[in-house]
Amino acid sequence: MSQTKFLLDESRMPTHWYNIAADLPVPLAPPLHPGTMQPVGPDDLAPLFPMALIMQEVASEREIEIPEPVREVFRLWRPSPLIRAHRLEKALGTPAKIYYKYEGVSPAGSHKPNTAVPQAWFNAQAGVKKLSTETGAGQWGSSLAFAGALFGIEVQVFQVRVSYDQKPYRRALMETYGASCVASPSNLTNSGRAILAKNPDHPGSLGIAISEAVEVAATHDDTKYALGSVLNHVLLHQTIVGQEAMLQLEMAGDDPDVIVGCTGGGSNFAGISFPFIGQQLRGGRKRRIVAVEPAACPSLTRGKFAYDFGDTAHLAPLTKMHTLGSTFTPPGFHAGGLRYHGMAPLVSHLKELGIIEATAYHQRECFAAGVTFARAEGIVPAPEANHAVKGAIVEALRCKAEGRSETILFNLCGHGHFDMSAYSAYMADKLVDQPYDEAELAMALAGLPSVPA
Amino acid sequence: MSQTKFLLDESRMPTHWYNIAADLPVPLAPPLHPGTMQPVGPDDLAPLFPMALIMQEVASEREIEIPEPVREVFRLWRPSPLIRAHRLEKALGTPAKIYYKYEGVSPAGSHKPNTAVPQAWFNAQAGVKKLSTETGAGQWGSSLAFAGALFGIEVQVFQVRVSYDQKPYRRALMETYGASCVASPSNLTNSGRAILAKNPDHPGSLGIAISEAVEVAATHDDTKYALGSVLNHVLLHQTIVGQEAMLQLEMAGDDPDVIVGCTGGGSNFAGISFPFIGQQLRGGRKRRIVAVEPAACPSLTRGKFAYDFGDTAHLAPLTKMHTLGSTFTPPGFHAGGLRYHGMAPLVSHLKELGIIEATAYHQRECFAAGVTFARAEGIVPAPEANHAVKGAIVEALRCKAEGRSETILFNLCGHGHFDMSAYSAYMADKLVDQPYDEAELAMALAGLPSVPA
Repeated sequence: MSQTKFLLDESRMPTHWYNIAADLPVPLAPPLHPGTMQPVGPDDLAPLFPMALIMQEVASEREIEIPEPVREVFRLWRPSPLIRAHRLEKALGTPAKIYYKYEGVSPAGSHKPNTAVPQAWFNAQAGVKKLSTETGAGQWGSSLAFAGALFGIEVQVFQVRVSYDQKPYRRALMETYGASCVASPSNLTNSGRAILAKNPDHPGSLGIAISEAVEVAATHDDTKYALGSVLNHVLLHQTIVGQEAMLQLEMAGDDPDVIVGCTGGGSNFAGISFPFIGQQLRGGRKRRIVAVEPAACPSLTRGKFAYDFGDTAHLAPLTKMHTLGSTFTPPGFHAGGLRYHGMAPLVSHLKELGIIEATAYHQRECFAAGVTFARAEGIVPAPEANHAVKGAIVEALRCKAEGRSETILFNLCGHGHFDMSAYSAYMADKLVDQPYDEAELAMALAGLPSVPA
Repeated sequence: MSQTKFLLDESRMPTHWYNIAADLPVPLAPPLHPGTMQPVGPDDLAPLFPMALIMQEVASEREIEIPEPVREVFRLWRPSPLIRAHRLEKALGTPAKIYYKYEGVSPAGSHKPNTAVPQAWFNAQAGVKKLSTETGAGQWGSSLAFAGALFGIEVQVFQVRVSYDQKPYRRALMETYGASCVASPSNLTNSGRAILAKNPDHPGSLGIAISEAVEVAATHDDTKYALGSVLNHVLLHQTIVGQEAMLQLEMAGDDPDVIVGCTGGGSNFAGISFPFIGQQLRGGRKRRIVAVEPAACPSLTRGKFAYDFGDTAHLAPLTKMHTLGSTFTPPGFHAGGLRYHGMAPLVSHLKELGIIEATAYHQRECFAAGVTFARAEGIVPAPEANHAVKGAIVEALRCKAEGRSETILFNLCGHGHFDMSAYSAYMADKLVDQPYDEAELAMALAGLPSVPA
């Protein structure tokens, strides 16, 4: 039996993040100010973010150093393992080789601390006392709560109500780390109150929760805002995942033909794939890169590539991205981390350039894939990660049908230990696929802002 | 900053378990048959266990090989990391060096798969179709469910009712792996029905759940029983933990002065400490070995060293151990994995020989220690593991008071991601210390069986 687990010594942990902006054949469209519709400069973002992160957002150099105090924290769980899924391969009867990078070993159980820790550190360096943020399933909120505890920063989390109700244990985790957590829409902000006035039972959305968190930051001098995905600097921070995977696959003597990640805002997908895409953009090997999204919130496969607001109340800058419209409210499916109307501008840009593919699956088929994976490999994936598992299994079965021994790499971005109520529902055959409302999508797309050329 | 995480390549994973029986200065008292009160032979145990495990139970050789198919499964997460708790040391202001072996990286989130996997494998080799077992918090039940899924064995779990109600997500995990789980006492067995007849709201206990699981195995030809702690072969399987820690501390250039583990049945404590104790018994260095138990179920510190039944219905053999009496029902505190009336005979024996120490703490001070740990090190420990954290912090603060830079090693036997309702209660100041009933303890001790000399 060949090796199962590929571990890097912490002395080999990457010292720099990889910035794909340096290698893009076409530059990214700039973000626009929500008031003026003109490109925003660093100063426009200063109420929300510390300057160090703003500079990363617009950086053009290929490598950006990971500060040593951040690496010191990472060593608690990084480098994360790369695992060869021998048992899953056998269960599927596929000639493909399947590897997964496992980010569930972090204290919060997902990839999110990879960006929460540097964000908290750069804010602490800038003297920020408090961070406000949104969260869906709670993976991001608990990660920022963890990072805040390390650097003495107060953290306030607005959690999308449907997830707040479905996943009380994530909230308990945030509170254990010392953060406060409220259901969004809340009565704490103008944005939240406006939504509740129309619908007191509103299930919430990431777009609304972002508005609330941005509003708190914009109206308090000692408070900044932190986002868990979508933005360039967030995707940048996740590239440590793919860089480690590259070193680990070298140890394994393998090279991936297909790389699969799930996409909500795009950060874990970017983390696993951008370092490989960068090789290609610099003249290296072309690989298939597959983004898997929920069929109930299909921004990459059904959205429009256009400028749109990042939040519901239109307080955040507009970015050019695949979007379902900022007024679109996705159904309350269990992969709360994937319930965002837009997609990271960088991921959207790569899709438009034909460098990545995208596909969408419903939640029941994703949970079925997750249970297959759990019974073969032991790890119970988070509902978000089940989309990547499903995507990898589809590729492995294609290899079986074609008799090809390709190498598949996917990012298992988190474990599902906080999501067992969803598994309970699935096992009891109570989990249904919830299609989005086509009329609502059409209306949301029709309402996309018009932007001066 | 010195190194944080000490990883062993899987090629250095131990190939043999360490059997402390080979090094004991005084042999262990034999188990007795519950009917005849005479020493049991291997054949007496054959209805419950496959012969390979029975032979391990009575083995006298120092090293017993870990079968390659078992090691192949272990490679999914083993060797587990050894982590230097730099941040906790700093938070405590102690000159002590604190290391923890982290067993929460296993698929089930605890050390229990270390024995579940070999137990399932040896049963599968013997042609067993079904395993019945008990579980407290659910860590053992979910681990056996995982192991059963790997080797095609059906698993039926009797879960102590108070934990079944407190921790529904552990049950969902068992079901995801394909096991069935019922609350104990149940209507499925004579033992369960007898208890329910007296008290339909009985909170259950590990002693009762063991009776139910043993009854199912004893009355079905294709079914055997599996126990997650207490027995010699179970402790044997956990010694891989301490053997790895020994290699990792060598990498760190350190040697522990104090080793701390929490004790319920004794298996994770044995796992971390026995290989070190073995060195001492063979003429090596003497170290302090500290067992930490819950003050609400204090078998080592308040129990009697005597022959007692392992279960409530007296279906299992008697062993000589520290016991609170098999009729003792501990209060429903949150560390469900530590709610057992007895202690592993091997651990009890070492206590009587003066080779280990024991101490007890209440759950609130243990949760306080767990929150301190989580905010410093990121990992949220299981309520059981919080007892070890508390024990390690007490030692670290003693070092601070004495100005001594000792090296402390403890076993962080599982994460608390399934136990966040307990953390919620603690954070909301709703968690109370639940003393056991002194009169009930006195009665249970008075009722210990009399055994022929």
